[in-house]
Amino acid sequence: MYVSASLEKLIENFSRFPGIGRKSAQRLAWYLLSQDKSFADSLAESIKSTVEAFKPCSKCQMLSESDPCPICSDQERDTDLLCIVETSADIQIIEKMNEYRGQYFVLGHLLSPIDGYGPAQINSEILQKRVDELMPKELILALKPSTEGEATMHYLWELFRDKVQSITRLSTGLPFGGDLEYSSSNTLKSAWERRFRL
Amino acid sequence: MYVSASLEKLIENFSRFPGIGRKSAQRLAWYLLSQDKSFADSLAESIKSTVEAFKPCSKCQMLSESDPCPICSDQERDTDLLCIVETSADIQIIEKMNEYRGQYFVLGHLLSPIDGYGPAQINSEILQKRVDELMPKELILALKPSTEGEATMHYLWELFRDKVQSITRLSTGLPFGGDLEYSSSNTLKSAWERRFRL
Repeated sequence: MYVSASLEKLIENFSRFPGIGRKSAQRLAWYLLSQDKSFADSLAESIKSTVEAFKPCSKCQMLSESDPCPICSDQERDTDLLCIVETSADIQIIEKMNEYRGQYFVLGHLLSPIDGYGPAQINSEILQKRVDELMPKELILALKPSTEGEATMHYLWELFRDKVQSITRLSTGLPFGGDLEYSSSNTLKSAWERRFRL
Repeated sequence: MYVSASLEKLIENFSRFPGIGRKSAQRLAWYLLSQDKSFADSLAESIKSTVEAFKPCSKCQMLSESDPCPICSDQERDTDLLCIVETSADIQIIEKMNEYRGQYFVLGHLLSPIDGYGPAQINSEILQKRVDELMPKELILALKPSTEGEATMHYLWELFRDKVQSITRLSTGLPFGGDLEYSSSNTLKSAWERRFRL
């Protein structure tokens, strides 16, 4: 194998993405090398400029090019509903469902004390401020049903049980350990409709 | 869905890689956004510098940082064997096998006249020059058994049948670990026809 240092670094960079193993990363790198140089230029430029442009919205923590983000600035959205998600990408998935017109909040991580993610690392102070500000009637915990997800939902329930009338979670129709992103739209829709009170 | 133009462009760029659909591309883009900015910088820089550094070797057409490439410059490799592959990535796969110590040649594409890939587009002139130079005893056609692969192998056989003593192609049959049930009828057929005694 003749893998130079620069190629090795590119392969390592690609391997950092979730779901991309070393073999796939090698494939991506060699594909890139075999294409017209303009593709690499466009990709590199696009990566830099997009990441440069996106910052967390001060209200909901979603990565956005504007602050507040388009969802928080939308006057027509329901302020009685606040949906709590793990990542900004989860919001895109839920919006695609075309069912929900309330507010969002992005935790950034699930609680996982072993990995160093305690309450401070999941934006809970900003979330408490946001809940006090909105005083929503329902808090929808749209987190995945994994160990960390369950722990996070329990923590949030303890935190807001006296403040918010109704705290719901998505139906456990979702496969255990599965990412929101990879569930079919029907599964997500039924999980959404069957959400139940904690 | 709130997808800005810059994010859309990044998603489109990721979608251009083989095996990455729109959903995976979105996932990569959002992962990138959620990471430390230094990762995006490192990735973009790595893409640009690697693609800048790699050029086709003038002898074998493999993408390499040096010309001739490390394989063509290796005096200890067998010059009686010349293995013809479709892409530079294929060479990495064959080298990993640790079985072959001969020379290589990269076509870049398989013959596919409908898509505009005729003899001129698969480096055949450079290949003929290389064959005349090496005068190999065996030409190993390590191309995939598809319509285009078969056409290319036939073309190369016609081209070199009078010049090279032995022209071989890789065996076809069931992949290791593959279930009969999941193999295509062509694969099964060739495995059947090429069955051998135990």
